[in-house]
Amino acid sequence: MGSSFQVFGIKTKILIPGDDMAEIIIDESSQAGGILDGDIIAIAESGLATTEDAIVRLSDVTPSEKAYEYERMYKIDARLAEIVISESDSIAGGIPGFLLSLKSGTLLPNAGVDGSNAPPGCVVTLPKDPDESAKRIHDKILEKTGKETGVLVIDSRTHAMRLGCSGVAIGCYGVSAITDERGKKDLFGHELEVTRLAVGDNLASAAELVMGESDECTPVAIIRGLSKYISKGSSGVGSIEPSECLFMGVAMNSNPALIDRDRKTE
Amino acid sequence: MGSSFQVFGIKTKILIPGDDMAEIIIDESSQAGGILDGDIIAIAESGLATTEDAIVRLSDVTPSEKAYEYERMYKIDARLAEIVISESDSIAGGIPGFLLSLKSGTLLPNAGVDGSNAPPGCVVTLPKDPDESAKRIHDKILEKTGKETGVLVIDSRTHAMRLGCSGVAIGCYGVSAITDERGKKDLFGHELEVTRLAVGDNLASAAELVMGESDECTPVAIIRGLSKYISKGSSGVGSIEPSECLFMGVAMNSNPALIDRDRKTE
Repeated sequence: MGSSFQVFGIKTKILIPGDDMAEIIIDESSQAGGILDGDIIAIAESGLATTEDAIVRLSDVTPSEKAYEYERMYKIDARLAEIVISESDSIAGGIPGFLLSLKSGTLLPNAGVDGSNAPPGCVVTLPKDPDESAKRIHDKILEKTGKETGVLVIDSRTHAMRLGCSGVAIGCYGVSAITDERGKKDLFGHELEVTRLAVGDNLASAAELVMGESDECTPVAIIRGLSKYISKGSSGVGSIEPSECLFMGVAMNSNPALIDRDRKTE
Repeated sequence: MGSSFQVFGIKTKILIPGDDMAEIIIDESSQAGGILDGDIIAIAESGLATTEDAIVRLSDVTPSEKAYEYERMYKIDARLAEIVISESDSIAGGIPGFLLSLKSGTLLPNAGVDGSNAPPGCVVTLPKDPDESAKRIHDKILEKTGKETGVLVIDSRTHAMRLGCSGVAIGCYGVSAITDERGKKDLFGHELEVTRLAVGDNLASAAELVMGESDECTPVAIIRGLSKYISKGSSGVGSIEPSECLFMGVAMNSNPALIDRDRKTE
């Protein structure tokens, strides 16, 4: 008999700055029959960022020369480009409408800065420290309910040469985001070639199936039955060096300057 | 109240060439209480490829000059390199141990050719036509059980600058792999920026959470409660043009020859 698990979408009111995400999750968890030990709670970064007031009004931004250059090159609003620059560790390039950012060891469009579900004239940035947010929410849920959970902050992203967005984990606490299968044997007894599983991204993708991107107001999912991935006290999603990454490795062989371009430390 | 769904891992015997995947799924679906209308059935490509005898014995392969060149450049067995070349539309480059293939509009390491869970001295290639396999299995399940399902063929892959493998759909029948949210409004009534959701990849990732990569013999998952993604008669995952892809767009701006290198039509 194989294992099984269940995913519940948790609807909330429209979130606003100052809302207490942990309290909202506890209150609304009745939609999943309450919070149980071993539940994994996935929270959409956009909803979390809103409660944390990570909102920037475009009219408050004064673009730099660089931002105007990106506006000319990539047809992106210079004020948005300025916010993306300030949110990124470096900018690797762009295509019309988007800059490709390197941030916290991950490549992502526009540094995760998004106008969807933001108040008019505003954009929402990523939460400042998603691991810290996950820990804060985990700790409050433990304190208020006595339940040991894992908490993930998730985003919806495109991948190289894949059509459409899928879920990725950008922060976590109390859950193994990466499991290491190195040394394990396959069906024929030889060592596995695929050695690390992005459990955090898989959990994020499962959660996204009940969340949606539009006006569905389901910023939270509760995943039940996968307590094998609970890892008390563990924090962070883990990242990869560009040289270890097949895609970046190939791109860098073609043009070693690619990901160092426009680094802030210049 | 939000929506919810459930994922069941389906254990099987060790699969061998000639096994009938549809029959095995029907027999073993008792682990999920049988097959229901609206179930989405995810099948690991490696198990499917084995039943379809997509197995190549390394000692049967005579490497070309190009394969020996890749062996020198990327420390990959020339016989494996030869198989990867023959399975790829083009080779974009490599890093030690891996070639980066472009195949059916997707970038992937070693064209999906894998030694894990293959008999000794052999590798398993991807199923020849995953959409066709999905349709065949769908049709047989419909014929034998009268249930309308969606069928996905899934793989475990790394993405650019992400640590670890997550699930992707490489073939499907009867399920919407991509949903188009264009024209939909967000919470504040403006049009969404994120417009296409890779539902197939999200479903694949959810399935992977009960499958594992090692000796777990769980090549199938049944996903129940997401019949909203069932789409009678629809086939194929959809792909993206390199120029529309942010990652490839940036890489190609740096080096336009990147993905045309080593195209077979040369």
